[in-house]
Amino acid sequence: MLLTLIEFLAVISAGVYGVLLARRLGMDFVGVFSVAFIISFGGGTLRDLFLDRTPLFWIAAPHYPIIIFFLAVVLSLIRYPARFFERLLPIPDALGLGLFSVVGTAYALETPDMSWFNAALFGVVTGTFGGVMGDVVCNRVPSLFRPSTPLYATASFLGSWTYILLTEFHVIESIAATLGLAVVVFTRLAAIKWDIRLPDLRYGTEEID
Amino acid sequence: MLLTLIEFLAVISAGVYGVLLARRLGMDFVGVFSVAFIISFGGGTLRDLFLDRTPLFWIAAPHYPIIIFFLAVVLSLIRYPARFFERLLPIPDALGLGLFSVVGTAYALETPDMSWFNAALFGVVTGTFGGVMGDVVCNRVPSLFRPSTPLYATASFLGSWTYILLTEFHVIESIAATLGLAVVVFTRLAAIKWDIRLPDLRYGTEEID
Amino acid sequence: MLLTLIEFLAVISAGVYGVLLARRLGMDFVGVFSVAFIISFGGGTLRDLFLDRTPLFWIAAPHYPIIIFFLAVVLSLIRYPARFFERLLPIPDALGLGLFSVVGTAYALETPDMSWFNAALFGVVTGTFGGVMGDVVCNRVPSLFRPSTPLYATASFLGSWTYILLTEFHVIESIAATLGLAVVVFTRLAAIKWDIRLPDLRYGTEEID
Repeated sequence: MLLTLIEFLAVISAGVYGVLLARRLGMDFVGVFSVAFIISFGGGTLRDLFLDRTPLFWIAAPHYPIIIFFLAVVLSLIRYPARFFERLLPIPDALGLGLFSVVGTAYALETPDMSWFNAALFGVVTGTFGGVMGDVVCNRVPSLFRPSTPLYATASFLGSWTYILLTEFHVIESIAATLGLAVVVFTRLAAIKWDIRLPDLRYGTEEID
Repeated sequence: MLLTLIEFLAVISAGVYGVLLARRLGMDFVGVFSVAFIISFGGGTLRDLFLDRTPLFWIAAPHYPIIIFFLAVVLSLIRYPARFFERLLPIPDALGLGLFSVVGTAYALETPDMSWFNAALFGVVTGTFGGVMGDVVCNRVPSLFRPSTPLYATASFLGSWTYILLTEFHVIESIAATLGLAVVVFTRLAAIKWDIRLPDLRYGTEEID
Repeated sequence: MLLTLIEFLAVISAGVYGVLLARRLGMDFVGVFSVAFIISFGGGTLRDLFLDRTPLFWIAAPHYPIIIFFLAVVLSLIRYPARFFERLLPIPDALGLGLFSVVGTAYALETPDMSWFNAALFGVVTGTFGGVMGDVVCNRVPSLFRPSTPLYATASFLGSWTYILLTEFHVIESIAATLGLAVVVFTRLAAIKWDIRLPDLRYGTEEID
């Protein structure tokens, strides 16, 4: 029940980000819906393809694409959508990042031969690569890869490891998942509040070519 | 027979678009062939991966990649290819959009748990996402997502729904497919003729951030 | 044994390219690791998805993602990494291109219905499309597609065909693989030494639209 609510909020907030990004770039409804779809479902789709899970989760849960469609319709009718929504987004987005990280890690751990490190990567990919693909399709360097964003993949990575280590040490599944999710949400919101980012690794280009 | 001819024309016209785009951007033959390949086969490849169909259609129909290869060779030798071809393309391209939309929708409907809405999305992805991936790989915002193109994904969506609703109401398969294809072709060619586009959804950026 | 060493050097050199590219673009560690991962494993991942091979090779060989992680950490701590590494890279990179081309082709030939031409494409995709995806995610036109790079996909294509023809004429597998790899390495290094490139196929844009 609570999980369903978090998942619902997470899909909605990813969709809102997608609509705002696509509208800011001057796209039409095809672009708005496509970008919202890619940001909402891209990470989970990559996970399912990489783990050979079938059917894809948005085929198995067909109400989600329809929700994104109507979200895109409604948000396309609003004149100044950003003003209202950008304040509200960080909390559901952080919850969604936490949920998808834990779920992606858990699915990966069900696969034979899965190393802990790869399982953590699956958590991060599930939680964050929808946004990466949305940026790529909008012809932008992914904001996930740039030092301008407060810890995001890092929060997902820490929460995924929390979940992995707790389950490997036989902590009850639901407690491990809750703590993993909490680590993600706490890290992400703390990073936003105190503007914690990874350093820019650019090197002096005048030194080479 | 007629289907094979339409498919052939559709692959050729997608390939021609790819060659022209890559040459316009100053690529070499590797780029020209790759972009033509991606535009011709990208949508169907995504469909097959998402539906877990194996082998991929261009592995099962291995003459198509060879056709695109020789098309790319021939069109790379022509000095001013655009002048000759751009007039001819819209009709085979619209036919191909119609065919691939209907085929993609039909394959999707064979999958258990497939909602009508998702099946229509599979029609659109099959018909249009080769072009989206071609644009992405050429470092352009996909023209499919921008209001500068006359109805394209919209035509595919309408035709896919036509096919879905007719087959669900037990219309004979071949009639449903023909009508679905006709809706796509008519919508697309009408949109080109009367320059019908979806509106630009950009919002005033001076109002936010 | 020798194969394992070549594979190791190839993964390392692809990872180094990825780190240098991401740092040059001013990314943070998330970007550096992601780009290195995509360049190192992207081509093989596409091959595995297209051939429906499961688990993905970097899930079956889980030390590789960890190697790339520590490579990214170490290379992120060096102040001027390019000066030291760019001299060393072409030889391991050419070896890796050769190895991955031959391995990709060999895996493709195991698949039923695989045409020789498609098998050669699988060699090229395995050897080169990690770099293409790395460029795409960094918002650049893939250097593989541009005439500014000495023969790269072409070297892979020639070596893949060498391997295909030799195995089809019943040459012993290990000899066919060695000769295929040698053709790739020789072609690539000769192309670098004598600056051999494919021609720019741009046509006069003033002639059309």
